[in-house]
Amino acid sequence: MNQDFEPYYAVIFTSTRTEGDNGYSKMADLMECLAKEQDGFMGIDSAKSEVGITVSYWKTLDAIKNWKQQSDHLQAQQKGVKDWYKWYNVKICKVEREYDFNA
Amino acid sequence: MNQDFEPYYAVIFTSTRTEGDNGYSKMADLMECLAKEQDGFMGIDSAKSEVGITVSYWKTLDAIKNWKQQSDHLQAQQKGVKDWYKWYNVKICKVEREYDFNA
Repeated sequence: MNQDFEPYYAVIFTSTRTEGDNGYSKMADLMECLAKEQDGFMGIDSAKSEVGITVSYWKTLDAIKNWKQQSDHLQAQQKGVKDWYKWYNVKICKVEREYDFNA
Repeated sequence: MNQDFEPYYAVIFTSTRTEGDNGYSKMADLMECLAKEQDGFMGIDSAKSEVGITVSYWKTLDAIKNWKQQSDHLQAQQKGVKDWYKWYNVKICKVEREYDFNA
C-alpha cells in the first residue's frame, strides 16, 4: 500500500449511442484534445462494447466543474443529448486507493 | 441534485489482455455470476476496445474486500496474473454524485 497516495477524482461516463456516427467521432476526438488542455486533467480511458465507458481522471472537483462548463464542451453536451446518446450516466468519484499489475 | 444520494463504491478495473482467450471468457462469465451473489453487489459495466474497462459497484468497502478474498475469485486472480493480463490497474472509488440522461 502506498502511504503517500494522494486522492484524485474520476468521472465515469457510461452511455448507449443512437444509430450512426452523426459527427460523433470527430467531436469525441476534439473533446479529448480539449480536455487534455484543461488544468487538472490527469488522463482518460475509453472502451466501447454494448455500452460505452469513458473514465476521465482529474486532480480536483473544481477541475471537473471547469471542464463541464468549458464552452466547446457545453456545445458537445447539447449535441450529445440531441443526436448521439440514447442514455448516459455520469458518476463523480473520489479515487481512494489503487494498485497495478505489470507482467 | 438528489439530496438523498447515498454514496457507494466503484471499482474501476482497466486492463490489457494477452493474445488468445486461454479460458478467459468462461471464467469472466463465472466471476460475474459469483459477484452478483455477493452481499453488497450493486451492478457491473464492461466494455472492451484497446483497453478493457470493467466497473463494478458496491454498497461498502467491506463488500469489495469480501469479493476480493472470495475463494473462486482468488483463483481467477491468480490465473489472471499468470495467463490473461499484460497489465491491469484497479482503482477503489467512492461515488459521490451521479446524474442520468434518458432520450
